Amino acid sequence: MALLVVGSVAFDSVKTPYGEAAEVLGGSATYCAVAASYFTDVRVVAVVGEDFGEEPMRLLRSRHIDVSAIEVAKGKTFRWSGVYSDDLNDRTTLATHLNVFESFQPRLRPEDASIPNLFLGNIDPDLQSQVLRRLRPSLSACDTMNFWIEGKSDSLKRLLAEVDGLVINDSEARLLAGELNTVVAARRLLSLGLRFLVIKRGEYGAALFAEGRYFAVPAYPVERPVDPTGAGDSFAGGFMGHLANIGDASGRGLREAMIYGSVLASFCVEDFSLRRIGSLSRGEIDRRARELREFLSVDGPFAGRP
Amino acid sequence: MALLVVGSVAFDSVKTPYGEAAEVLGGSATYCAVAASYFTDVRVVAVVGEDFGEEPMRLLRSRHIDVSAIEVAKGKTFRWSGVYSDDLNDRTTLATHLNVFESFQPRLRPEDASIPNLFLGNIDPDLQSQVLRRLRPSLSACDTMNFWIEGKSDSLKRLLAEVDGLVINDSEARLLAGELNTVVAARRLLSLGLRFLVIKRGEYGAALFAEGRYFAVPAYPVERPVDPTGAGDSFAGGFMGHLANIGDASGRGLREAMIYGSVLASFCVEDFSLRRIGSLSRGEIDRRARELREFLSVDGPFAGRP
Repeated sequence: MALLVVGSVAFDSVKTPYGEAAEVLGGSATYCAVAASYFTDVRVVAVVGEDFGEEPMRLLRSRHIDVSAIEVAKGKTFRWSGVYSDDLNDRTTLATHLNVFESFQPRLRPEDASIPNLFLGNIDPDLQSQVLRRLRPSLSACDTMNFWIEGKSDSLKRLLAEVDGLVINDSEARLLAGELNTVVAARRLLSLGLRFLVIKRGEYGAALFAEGRYFAVPAYPVERPVDPTGAGDSFAGGFMGHLANIGDASGRGLREAMIYGSVLASFCVEDFSLRRIGSLSRGEIDRRARELREFLSVDGPFAGRP
Repeated sequence: MALLVVGSVAFDSVKTPYGEAAEVLGGSATYCAVAASYFTDVRVVAVVGEDFGEEPMRLLRSRHIDVSAIEVAKGKTFRWSGVYSDDLNDRTTLATHLNVFESFQPRLRPEDASIPNLFLGNIDPDLQSQVLRRLRPSLSACDTMNFWIEGKSDSLKRLLAEVDGLVINDSEARLLAGELNTVVAARRLLSLGLRFLVIKRGEYGAALFAEGRYFAVPAYPVERPVDPTGAGDSFAGGFMGHLANIGDASGRGLREAMIYGSVLASFCVEDFSLRRIGSLSRGEIDRRARELREFLSVDGPFAGRP
């Protein structure tokens, strides 16, 4: 079953200890859609500028992503640039130029309401709510960031009462809950009306809170991470893509989805932009998913690398 | 089978956002021995000052720990004081007074060589090597810290070529390996001659590297952590205690031991000093171990709290 992804499409300029890349394709919707495209049909609702060009569109189309709802608006495409710390755990934003993304209004068709799965990337929570109410999908999840937590907390809380799941960074979860302890923060966020909560912890993996229960998945151990940009969005894409594919967001489905989220994030960080994650085989993905399950297994054969 | 623990016994003064405790029993050997005492017979080799008193000895004896090799030397007991950050992830040392610990020389009896399991807490690596060579146990592991990594790197590397396992903090593993990536750092440390390597990641759990393989265990989610002091040593104690008990340090034994390490660390942080970890029942421990296994299970029933 298909997945609709709403979010940003951007050009990123990134510097890490392993190199740099200028004006490369990025954005939350881009990473999420590409990651999800290995599991299900994906339609992207986003906006780019007149400078976007055909090449990035071709890349998205090569992943069979429906780009017909990527609006080309007058002006320039969203641009972000940043630099990462030596251990890749911290980043400093050098510049954010929202450009056409500043006045982004998701354009939906009536038939989009028949797409059963929705991921609301990190945009204004009022827009996220609007889309959610228009589409009323069977399964929905969203992401958000500090900017909205601090600036539009009420809108965000209204959204969380309606969306099924929240997929969010560790530090943002704590900020949103106003609580430093992750377990207490998770309980507080769930009490806002969420059915499930995924807390992403970068190189430490991710935790799932749902149905009063807990599940933790480690990051797939990557030996040569090059650029963490988009890893969280790739996690969300692998996670939602798997759920859309199996049509089962029960406890077990969610846990399997955590594995795939972790796997897609691991491929994302192995190169800049979509260079690695844009050209995977399903076999490569399933191999890492199998390994990750083995890394979690207490009793099974002691297997896997490194 | 019994476990011999060599390390520090100290009085700690700790301040955390949840309260403070002055001049309470601490030290690497103390936490490790108490955690291990739920699994096996434990003998502690350490030094304290004339001010140590009977009460802490009684506490250790109440855990059936053999304290006859805790030497009472002329002078004062090792004292440490520190304060933790709001999220408990960082700490600042306010004072370290080594006192009698400064000239600690582990006193071993000939019959200690019949104790099959050895944990070398964080002391001078030359002393760790001396003890290891005197006892030649069936299974040995050690911890270390920045001070020795920076000051006695060659001694430490000689030790790692002889000891079976290293149980070490994330940041110290990176420092010791001279490598920021955990996977590469792990491979480098193993190549020094270790049979297994445990990397402790605080609230994110711990990772095991052994036999060319990988296993990750999350921290047991604690809702009211009060004081992280000793959590890493308690992990080591639960880990080594279980291995000593089952007498099996194969892949599966090591993975089970990771679960128990994580469980004992979770009890440790729930109160200051040994207030919580010093009075557990084996039932409480096994309940958390069962829950933690469930948190790792992709396919089993979706169980456990929170």
